[in-house]
Amino acid sequence: MKEHTVTARSNDSARDIPEATVARLPVYLRALVALAEQQISTCSSEELAAAAGVNSAKLRKDLSYLGSYGTRGVGYDVDYLRYQIAREIGVTQDWPVVIVGIGNLGHALANFSGFRSRGFRVVGLLDADPDMKDQTVAGLQVRPFDDLPEIATENGVAIGVIAVPAVAAQDVADALVAAGITSILNFAPTVLSVPERVDVRKVDLSIELQILAYHEQRKAVQTL
Amino acid sequence: MKEHTVTARSNDSARDIPEATVARLPVYLRALVALAEQQISTCSSEELAAAAGVNSAKLRKDLSYLGSYGTRGVGYDVDYLRYQIAREIGVTQDWPVVIVGIGNLGHALANFSGFRSRGFRVVGLLDADPDMKDQTVAGLQVRPFDDLPEIATENGVAIGVIAVPAVAAQDVADALVAAGITSILNFAPTVLSVPERVDVRKVDLSIELQILAYHEQRKAVQTL
Repeated sequence: MKEHTVTARSNDSARDIPEATVARLPVYLRALVALAEQQISTCSSEELAAAAGVNSAKLRKDLSYLGSYGTRGVGYDVDYLRYQIAREIGVTQDWPVVIVGIGNLGHALANFSGFRSRGFRVVGLLDADPDMKDQTVAGLQVRPFDDLPEIATENGVAIGVIAVPAVAAQDVADALVAAGITSILNFAPTVLSVPERVDVRKVDLSIELQILAYHEQRKAVQTL
Repeated sequence: MKEHTVTARSNDSARDIPEATVARLPVYLRALVALAEQQISTCSSEELAAAAGVNSAKLRKDLSYLGSYGTRGVGYDVDYLRYQIAREIGVTQDWPVVIVGIGNLGHALANFSGFRSRGFRVVGLLDADPDMKDQTVAGLQVRPFDDLPEIATENGVAIGVIAVPAVAAQDVADALVAAGITSILNFAPTVLSVPERVDVRKVDLSIELQILAYHEQRKAVQTL
Protein backbone atom coordinates (compact mmCIF):
# COMPACT_ATOMS: atom_id res chain seq x y z
CA MET A 1 0.00 0.00 0.00
CA LYS A 2 1.37 3.39 -0.90
CA GLU A 3 1.90 6.03 1.71
CA HIS A 4 -1.12 7.95 0.64
CA THR A 5 -3.30 6.50 -2.03
CA VAL A 6 -4.28 9.80 -3.53
CA THR A 7 -7.11 9.83 -5.98
CA ALA A 8 -6.57 12.08 -8.92
CA ARG A 9 -9.54 14.13 -7.80
CA SER A 10 -11.84 14.56 -10.72
CA ASN A 11 -13.87 17.70 -10.71
CA ASP A 12 -16.35 16.19 -13.11
CA SER A 13 -18.62 14.95 -10.34
CA ALA A 14 -18.39 11.43 -11.74
CA ARG A 15 -17.97 9.94 -8.29
CA ASP A 16 -21.02 9.83 -6.09
CA ILE A 17 -20.45 9.58 -2.39
CA PRO A 18 -23.41 8.08 -0.51
CA GLU A 19 -25.45 10.67 1.38
CA ALA A 20 -24.87 8.89 4.71
CA THR A 21 -21.11 9.13 4.14
CA VAL A 22 -21.41 12.82 3.26
CA ALA A 23 -23.21 13.35 6.58
CA ARG A 24 -20.35 11.67 8.47
CA LEU A 25 -17.48 13.56 6.79
CA PRO A 26 -17.97 16.68 8.97
CA VAL A 27 -17.92 14.43 12.04
CA TYR A 28 -14.57 12.93 10.96
CA LEU A 29 -13.27 16.40 10.24
CA ARG A 30 -14.23 17.56 13.73
CA ALA A 31 -12.51 14.52 15.29
CA LEU A 32 -9.34 15.16 13.23
CA VAL A 33 -9.25 18.80 14.27
CA ALA A 34 -9.49 17.68 17.92
CA LEU A 35 -6.62 15.19 17.38
CA ALA A 36 -4.47 17.85 15.70
CA GLU A 37 -5.12 20.18 18.64
CA GLN A 38 -3.70 17.47 20.90
CA GLN A 39 -0.55 17.42 18.71
CA ILE A 40 -1.40 13.92 17.45
CA SER A 41 -0.02 13.53 13.92
CA THR A 42 -1.03 9.97 13.01
CA CYS A 43 -3.95 7.83 14.14
CA SER A 44 -5.29 4.35 13.49
CA SER A 45 -8.73 3.86 11.98
CA GLU A 46 -9.83 2.50 15.37
CA GLU A 47 -8.68 5.66 17.17
CA LEU A 48 -10.31 7.95 14.65
CA ALA A 49 -13.49 5.86 14.66
CA ALA A 50 -13.67 6.04 18.46
CA ALA A 51 -13.14 9.81 18.41
CA ALA A 52 -15.90 10.17 15.82
CA GLY A 53 -18.26 7.73 17.49
CA VAL A 54 -18.64 5.27 14.59
CA ASN A 55 -17.33 1.75 14.07
CA SER A 56 -13.98 1.46 12.36
CA ALA A 57 -15.18 -0.69 9.44
CA LYS A 58 -17.68 2.03 8.52
CA LEU A 59 -14.98 4.68 8.86
CA ARG A 60 -12.60 2.80 6.54
CA LYS A 61 -15.37 2.29 4.00
CA ASP A 62 -16.32 5.98 4.15
CA LEU A 63 -12.73 7.14 3.70
CA SER A 64 -12.23 4.75 0.80
CA TYR A 65 -14.67 6.92 -1.18
CA LEU A 66 -12.11 9.69 -0.82
CA GLY A 67 -9.36 7.37 -2.00
CA SER A 68 -7.86 7.51 1.47
CA TYR A 69 -6.66 4.19 2.84
CA GLY A 70 -3.99 5.19 5.40
CA THR A 71 -0.67 3.40 5.70
CA ARG A 72 -0.51 -0.16 6.98
CA GLY A 73 0.94 -0.25 10.50
CA VAL A 74 1.00 3.55 10.71
CA GLY A 75 -2.56 4.66 10.15
CA TYR A 76 -3.75 7.96 8.84
CA ASP A 77 -1.76 11.18 8.66
CA VAL A 78 -4.03 13.50 10.65
CA ASP A 79 -3.19 16.72 8.78
CA TYR A 80 -3.35 15.17 5.35
CA LEU A 81 -6.64 13.38 5.97
CA ARG A 82 -8.04 16.59 7.40
CA TYR A 83 -7.10 18.39 4.22
CA GLN A 84 -8.60 15.63 2.04
CA ILE A 85 -11.92 15.71 3.87
CA ALA A 86 -12.09 19.50 4.01
CA ARG A 87 -11.43 19.63 0.26
CA GLU A 88 -14.07 16.98 -0.41
CA ILE A 89 -16.69 18.82 1.64
CA GLY A 90 -15.62 22.10 0.13
CA VAL A 91 -14.76 23.85 3.38
CA THR A 92 -11.33 24.81 2.09
CA GLN A 93 -13.34 27.35 0.16
CA ASP A 94 -14.90 30.44 1.66
CA TRP A 95 -18.69 30.24 1.95
CA PRO A 96 -20.47 33.55 2.42
CA VAL A 97 -23.59 33.03 4.58
CA VAL A 98 -26.53 35.26 5.49
CA ILE A 99 -28.62 34.77 8.61
CA VAL A 100 -32.24 35.91 8.50
CA GLY A 101 -33.98 36.54 11.81
CA ILE A 102 -31.83 38.00 14.56
CA GLY A 103 -33.77 36.89 17.62
CA ASN A 104 -32.14 34.78 20.31
CA LEU A 105 -31.34 31.95 17.92
CA GLY A 106 -30.03 34.30 15.21
CA HIS A 107 -27.85 35.99 17.83
CA ALA A 108 -26.49 32.64 18.99
CA LEU A 109 -25.76 31.58 15.40
CA ALA A 110 -24.09 34.90 14.52
CA ASN A 111 -21.78 34.46 17.52
CA PHE A 112 -21.10 30.77 16.88
CA SER A 113 -17.34 30.45 16.39
CA GLY A 114 -17.67 27.05 14.72
CA PHE A 115 -18.96 28.64 11.51
CA ARG A 116 -15.95 30.85 10.90
CA SER A 117 -13.44 28.13 11.74
CA ARG A 118 -15.00 25.85 9.12
CA GLY A 119 -14.98 28.24 6.21
CA PHE A 120 -18.40 29.83 6.71
CA ARG A 121 -18.23 33.61 6.76
CA VAL A 122 -21.34 35.43 7.94
CA VAL A 123 -21.64 38.41 5.58
CA GLY A 124 -25.15 39.55 6.42
CA LEU A 125 -27.56 39.64 9.34
CA LEU A 126 -31.08 40.50 8.30
CA ASP A 127 -34.22 41.21 10.27
CA ALA A 128 -37.61 42.53 9.23
CA ASP A 129 -38.09 44.33 12.56
CA PRO A 130 -37.22 48.03 12.06
CA ASP A 131 -36.20 48.22 15.76
CA MET A 132 -33.31 45.86 15.01
CA LYS A 133 -31.84 48.21 12.42
CA ASP A 134 -28.45 49.63 13.34
CA GLN A 135 -27.94 47.07 16.10
CA THR A 136 -24.55 45.42 15.92
CA VAL A 137 -24.33 41.68 16.54
CA ALA A 138 -21.04 39.78 16.41
CA GLY A 139 -19.42 42.81 14.77
CA LEU A 140 -21.99 43.10 11.98
CA GLN A 141 -24.72 45.68 11.64
CA VAL A 142 -28.21 44.18 11.37
CA ARG A 143 -29.76 45.20 8.06
CA PRO A 144 -33.37 45.39 6.87
CA PHE A 145 -34.69 42.23 5.25
CA ASP A 146 -35.31 44.18 2.03
CA ASP A 147 -31.55 44.54 1.55
CA LEU A 148 -31.28 40.78 0.93
CA PRO A 149 -30.92 40.89 -2.91
CA GLU A 150 -28.21 43.54 -2.67
CA ILE A 151 -26.23 41.67 0.02
CA ALA A 152 -26.61 38.35 -1.80
CA THR A 153 -25.32 39.77 -5.08
CA GLU A 154 -22.47 41.80 -3.60
CA ASN A 155 -21.11 38.88 -1.57
CA GLY A 156 -21.97 35.95 -3.82
CA VAL A 157 -23.96 34.39 -0.99
CA ALA A 158 -24.63 30.68 -1.55
CA ILE A 159 -26.12 29.69 1.78
CA GLY A 160 -28.98 31.29 3.71
CA VAL A 161 -29.84 30.46 7.31
CA ILE A 162 -33.47 30.85 8.38
CA ALA A 163 -33.89 31.67 12.08
CA VAL A 164 -37.33 33.30 11.97
CA PRO A 165 -40.59 31.97 13.48
CA ALA A 166 -42.38 29.21 11.56
CA VAL A 167 -45.06 31.53 10.16
CA ALA A 168 -42.47 33.70 8.40
CA ALA A 169 -40.16 30.95 7.18
CA GLN A 170 -41.73 30.25 3.77
CA ASP A 171 -41.68 33.96 2.81
CA VAL A 172 -38.04 34.17 3.81
CA ALA A 173 -37.25 31.01 1.81
CA ASP A 174 -38.98 32.48 -1.26
CA ALA A 175 -36.94 35.67 -0.92
CA LEU A 176 -33.68 33.71 -0.51
CA VAL A 177 -34.45 31.70 -3.66
CA ALA A 178 -35.39 34.88 -5.56
CA ALA A 179 -32.03 36.36 -4.52
CA GLY A 180 -30.26 33.42 -6.18
CA ILE A 181 -29.40 31.47 -3.03
CA THR A 182 -29.40 27.71 -3.62
CA SER A 183 -28.75 26.24 -0.17
CA ILE A 184 -30.91 26.86 2.88
CA LEU A 185 -30.37 25.83 6.48
CA ASN A 186 -33.78 25.97 8.13
CA PHE A 187 -34.19 26.24 11.90
CA ALA A 188 -37.89 27.09 11.74
CA PRO A 189 -40.16 24.17 12.70
CA THR A 190 -41.88 24.00 9.33
CA VAL A 191 -41.49 22.26 5.98
CA LEU A 192 -40.36 24.63 3.20
CA SER A 193 -41.41 24.39 -0.40
CA VAL A 194 -38.54 25.31 -2.75
CA PRO A 195 -37.55 24.63 -6.37
CA GLU A 196 -35.75 21.34 -6.99
CA ARG A 197 -32.35 22.97 -7.54
CA VAL A 198 -32.38 24.35 -4.00
CA ASP A 199 -31.06 22.20 -1.14
CA VAL A 200 -32.71 22.56 2.25
CA ARG A 201 -31.33 21.05 5.45
CA LYS A 202 -33.52 21.28 8.49
CA VAL A 203 -32.28 21.46 12.03
CA ASP A 204 -34.84 20.21 14.52
CA LEU A 205 -33.51 20.84 17.99
CA SER A 206 -35.96 18.36 19.48
CA ILE A 207 -34.81 15.34 17.46
CA GLU A 208 -31.67 14.79 19.52
CA LEU A 209 -33.77 15.12 22.68
CA GLN A 210 -36.12 12.44 21.39
CA ILE A 211 -33.19 10.08 20.79
CA LEU A 212 -32.06 10.68 24.38
CA ALA A 213 -35.60 10.00 25.60
CA TYR A 214 -35.61 6.66 23.82
CA HIS A 215 -32.47 5.56 25.64
CA GLU A 216 -33.62 7.06 28.91
CA GLN A 217 -36.85 5.09 28.70
CA ARG A 218 -34.91 1.86 28.18
CA LYS A 219 -32.65 2.63 31.15
CA ALA A 220 -35.75 3.09 33.32
CA VAL A 221 -37.08 -0.28 32.18
CA GLN A 222 -33.77 -2.04 32.84
CA THR A 223 -33.59 -0.87 36.42
CA LEU A 224 -37.10 -2.12 37.28
CA MET B 1 -51.84 -9.21 6.63
CA LYS B 2 -53.78 -8.09 9.65
CA GLU B 3 -55.03 -4.55 9.93
CA HIS B 4 -52.37 -3.61 12.41
CA THR B 5 -49.79 -6.17 13.28
CA VAL B 6 -49.34 -5.03 16.83
CA THR B 7 -46.43 -6.40 18.75
CA ALA B 8 -47.22 -7.31 22.28
CA ARG B 9 -44.83 -4.64 23.44
CA SER B 10 -42.47 -6.20 25.90
CA ASN B 11 -41.04 -3.87 28.48
CA ASP B 12 -38.16 -6.24 29.12
CA SER B 13 -35.89 -4.47 26.62
CA ALA B 14 -35.34 -7.78 24.82
CA ARG B 15 -35.71 -6.15 21.42
CA ASP B 16 -32.89 -3.96 20.21
CA ILE B 17 -33.69 -1.41 17.57
CA PRO B 18 -30.64 -0.37 15.51
CA GLU B 19 -29.29 3.05 16.47
CA ALA B 20 -29.76 4.41 12.93
CA THR B 21 -33.44 3.43 13.10
CA VAL B 22 -33.79 5.11 16.51
CA ALA B 23 -32.38 8.29 14.97
CA ARG B 24 -35.00 8.20 12.20
CA LEU B 25 -38.04 7.55 14.41
CA PRO B 26 -38.34 11.23 15.45
CA VAL B 27 -38.18 12.18 11.76
CA TYR B 28 -41.08 9.82 10.97
CA LEU B 29 -42.97 11.18 13.94
CA ARG B 30 -42.53 14.74 12.68
CA ALA B 31 -43.72 13.73 9.20
CA LEU B 32 -46.78 11.97 10.67
CA VAL B 33 -47.66 15.01 12.77
CA ALA B 34 -47.50 17.14 9.60
CA LEU B 35 -49.77 14.68 7.74
CA ALA B 36 -52.25 14.63 10.63
CA GLU B 37 -52.30 18.43 10.59
CA GLN B 38 -53.33 18.22 6.93
CA GLN B 39 -56.24 15.94 7.97
CA ILE B 40 -54.62 12.97 6.20
CA SER B 41 -55.63 9.79 8.01
CA THR B 42 -53.88 7.07 5.99
CA CYS B 43 -50.68 7.16 3.94
CA SER B 44 -48.65 4.74 1.85
CA SER B 45 -45.08 3.92 2.80
CA GLU B 46 -43.99 5.88 -0.29
CA GLU B 47 -45.87 8.99 0.85
CA LEU B 48 -44.54 8.78 4.37
CA ALA B 49 -41.02 8.06 3.09
CA ALA B 50 -41.15 11.12 0.82
CA ALA B 51 -42.41 13.31 3.67
CA ALA B 52 -39.59 12.06 5.89
CA GLY B 53 -36.91 12.26 3.20
CA VAL B 54 -35.87 8.58 3.22
CA ASN B 55 -36.43 5.77 0.73
CA SER B 56 -39.52 3.67 1.26
CA ALA B 57 -37.70 0.33 1.63
CA LYS B 58 -35.73 1.76 4.54
CA LEU B 59 -38.91 3.18 6.07
CA ARG B 60 -40.70 -0.18 5.88
CA LYS B 61 -37.70 -1.92 7.40
CA ASP B 62 -37.50 0.64 10.21
CA LEU B 63 -41.20 0.37 11.00
CA SER B 64 -41.02 -3.42 11.00
CA TYR B 65 -38.91 -3.16 14.18
CA LEU B 66 -41.98 -1.63 15.80
CA GLY B 67 -44.13 -4.47 14.49
CA SER B 68 -45.85 -2.00 12.22
CA TYR B 69 -46.51 -3.21 8.70
CA GLY B 70 -49.47 -1.13 7.55
CA THR B 71 -52.39 -2.61 5.64
CA ARG B 72 -51.95 -3.88 2.09
CA GLY B 73 -53.61 -1.52 -0.38
CA VAL B 74 -54.42 1.00 2.35
CA GLY B 75 -51.12 1.89 3.94
CA TYR B 76 -50.53 3.15 7.42
CA ASP B 77 -53.07 4.64 9.78
CA VAL B 78 -51.47 8.02 10.50
CA ASP B 79 -52.76 8.44 14.06
CA TYR B 80 -52.07 4.90 15.10
CA LEU B 81 -48.54 4.84 13.68
CA ARG B 82 -47.91 8.19 15.34
CA TYR B 83 -48.94 6.69 18.66
CA GLN B 84 -46.78 3.60 18.12
CA ILE B 85 -43.67 5.64 17.36
CA ALA B 86 -44.27 8.13 20.17
CA ARG B 87 -44.66 5.23 22.59
CA GLU B 88 -41.53 3.55 21.28
CA ILE B 89 -39.46 6.72 21.65
CA GLY B 90 -41.00 7.39 25.01
CA VAL B 91 -42.43 10.83 24.19
CA THR B 92 -45.85 9.82 25.43
CA GLN B 93 -44.18 10.25 28.81
CA ASP B 94 -43.33 13.57 30.41
CA TRP B 95 -39.59 14.32 30.42
CA PRO B 96 -38.46 17.03 32.84
CA VAL B 97 -35.49 18.90 31.36
CA VAL B 98 -33.06 21.49 32.74
CA ILE B 99 -31.17 23.96 30.57
CA VAL B 100 -27.81 25.19 31.85
CA GLY B 101 -26.45 28.44 30.39
CA ILE B 102 -29.05 31.09 29.60
CA GLY B 103 -27.20 33.10 26.98
CA ASN B 104 -28.66 33.61 23.51
CA LEU B 105 -28.76 29.88 22.77
CA GLY B 106 -30.23 28.99 26.17
CA HIS B 107 -32.87 31.69 25.64
CA ALA B 108 -33.70 30.29 22.22
CA LEU B 109 -33.96 26.74 23.60
CA ALA B 110 -36.11 27.81 26.56
CA ASN B 111 -38.54 29.45 24.13
CA PHE B 112 -38.51 26.57 21.64
CA SER B 113 -42.10 25.35 21.35
CA GLY B 114 -41.03 22.05 19.81
CA PHE B 115 -39.80 20.76 23.17
CA ARG B 116 -43.10 21.11 25.00
CA SER B 117 -45.14 19.67 22.15
CA ARG B 118 -42.99 16.53 22.17
CA GLY B 119 -43.21 15.74 25.86
CA PHE B 120 -40.18 17.69 27.07
CA ARG B 121 -41.00 20.02 29.93
CA VAL B 122 -38.38 22.58 30.88
CA VAL B 123 -38.42 22.63 34.68
CA GLY B 124 -35.24 24.59 35.34
CA LEU B 125 -33.12 27.32 33.77
CA LEU B 126 -29.72 27.65 35.42
CA ASP B 127 -26.93 30.15 34.98
CA ALA B 128 -23.73 30.73 36.94
CA ASP B 129 -23.86 34.48 36.27
CA PRO B 130 -25.32 36.21 39.37
CA ASP B 131 -26.63 39.00 37.11
CA MET B 132 -29.01 36.49 35.50
CA LYS B 133 -30.65 35.67 38.82
CA ASP B 134 -34.30 36.66 39.04
CA GLN B 135 -34.58 37.15 35.29
CA THR B 136 -37.59 35.41 33.84
CA VAL B 137 -37.21 33.57 30.52
CA ALA B 138 -40.10 31.73 28.87
CA GLY B 139 -42.08 32.06 32.09
CA LEU B 140 -39.40 30.53 34.31
CA GLN B 141 -37.15 32.30 36.75
CA VAL B 142 -33.44 31.77 36.06
CA ARG B 143 -31.81 30.10 39.07
CA PRO B 144 -28.22 29.92 40.28
CA PHE B 145 -26.24 26.97 38.99
CA ASP B 146 -25.71 25.79 42.56
CA ASP B 147 -29.44 25.00 42.81
CA LEU B 148 -28.99 22.17 40.29
CA PRO B 149 -29.06 19.22 42.75
CA GLU B 150 -32.21 20.56 44.41
CA ILE B 151 -34.03 21.15 41.10
CA ALA B 152 -32.93 17.78 39.75
CA THR B 153 -34.19 15.88 42.78
CA GLU B 154 -37.45 17.79 43.15
CA ASN B 155 -38.44 17.33 39.52
CA GLY B 156 -36.90 13.96 38.76
CA VAL B 157 -34.91 15.52 35.94
CA ALA B 158 -33.57 12.92 33.50
CA ILE B 159 -32.19 15.15 30.76
CA GLY B 160 -29.81 18.10 31.02
CA VAL B 161 -29.11 20.53 28.18
CA ILE B 162 -25.68 22.22 28.13
CA ALA B 163 -25.72 25.64 26.44
CA VAL B 164 -22.62 27.15 28.08
CA PRO B 165 -19.31 28.07 26.38
CA ALA B 166 -16.91 25.20 25.64
CA VAL B 167 -14.57 25.99 28.54
CA ALA B 168 -17.37 25.54 31.10
CA ALA B 169 -19.04 22.50 29.54
CA GLN B 170 -17.12 19.71 31.30
CA ASP B 171 -17.73 21.24 34.74
CA VAL B 172 -21.43 21.50 33.95
CA ALA B 173 -21.49 17.90 32.72
CA ASP B 174 -19.80 16.73 35.94
CA ALA B 175 -22.41 18.59 38.01
CA LEU B 176 -25.28 17.15 35.95
CA VAL B 177 -23.93 13.63 36.47
CA ALA B 178 -23.41 14.27 40.20
CA ALA B 179 -27.05 15.41 40.38
CA GLY B 180 -28.14 12.02 39.01
CA ILE B 181 -28.91 13.11 35.45
CA THR B 182 -28.19 10.33 32.94
CA SER B 183 -28.84 11.99 29.56
CA ILE B 184 -27.07 15.09 28.30
CA LEU B 185 -27.70 17.14 25.19
CA ASN B 186 -24.51 19.11 24.54
CA PHE B 187 -24.46 22.25 22.41
CA ALA B 188 -20.94 23.27 23.48
CA PRO B 189 -18.29 22.61 20.82
CA THR B 190 -16.31 20.21 22.96
CA VAL B 191 -16.12 16.49 23.72
CA LEU B 192 -17.42 15.60 27.18
CA SER B 193 -16.07 12.87 29.36
CA VAL B 194 -18.86 11.12 31.32
CA PRO B 195 -19.43 7.72 33.00
CA GLU B 196 -20.57 4.93 30.70
CA ARG B 197 -24.14 4.92 32.03
CA VAL B 198 -24.64 8.51 30.85
CA ASP B 199 -25.78 9.17 27.27
CA VAL B 200 -24.49 12.29 25.54
CA ARG B 201 -25.83 13.61 22.24
CA LYS B 202 -23.97 16.47 20.69
CA VAL B 203 -25.51 19.10 18.47
CA ASP B 204 -22.97 20.73 16.16
CA LEU B 205 -24.71 23.55 14.36
CA SER B 206 -22.01 23.64 11.70
CA ILE B 207 -22.42 20.03 10.54
CA GLU B 208 -25.57 20.70 8.57
CA LEU B 209 -23.87 23.72 6.99
CA GLN B 210 -20.98 21.52 5.93
CA ILE B 211 -23.37 19.06 4.28
CA LEU B 212 -24.91 21.99 2.37
CA ALA B 213 -21.43 23.15 1.35
CA TYR B 214 -20.67 19.72 -0.07
CA HIS B 215 -23.72 19.86 -2.33
CA GLU B 216 -23.16 23.52 -3.16
CA GLN B 217 -19.64 22.71 -4.31
CA ARG B 218 -20.94 19.97 -6.58
CA LYS B 219 -23.54 22.31 -8.06
CA ALA B 220 -20.76 24.78 -8.84
CA VAL B 221 -18.78 22.04 -10.60
CA GLN B 222 -21.78 20.85 -12.59
CA THR B 223 -22.46 24.29 -14.03
CA LEU B 224 -18.88 24.77 -15.25
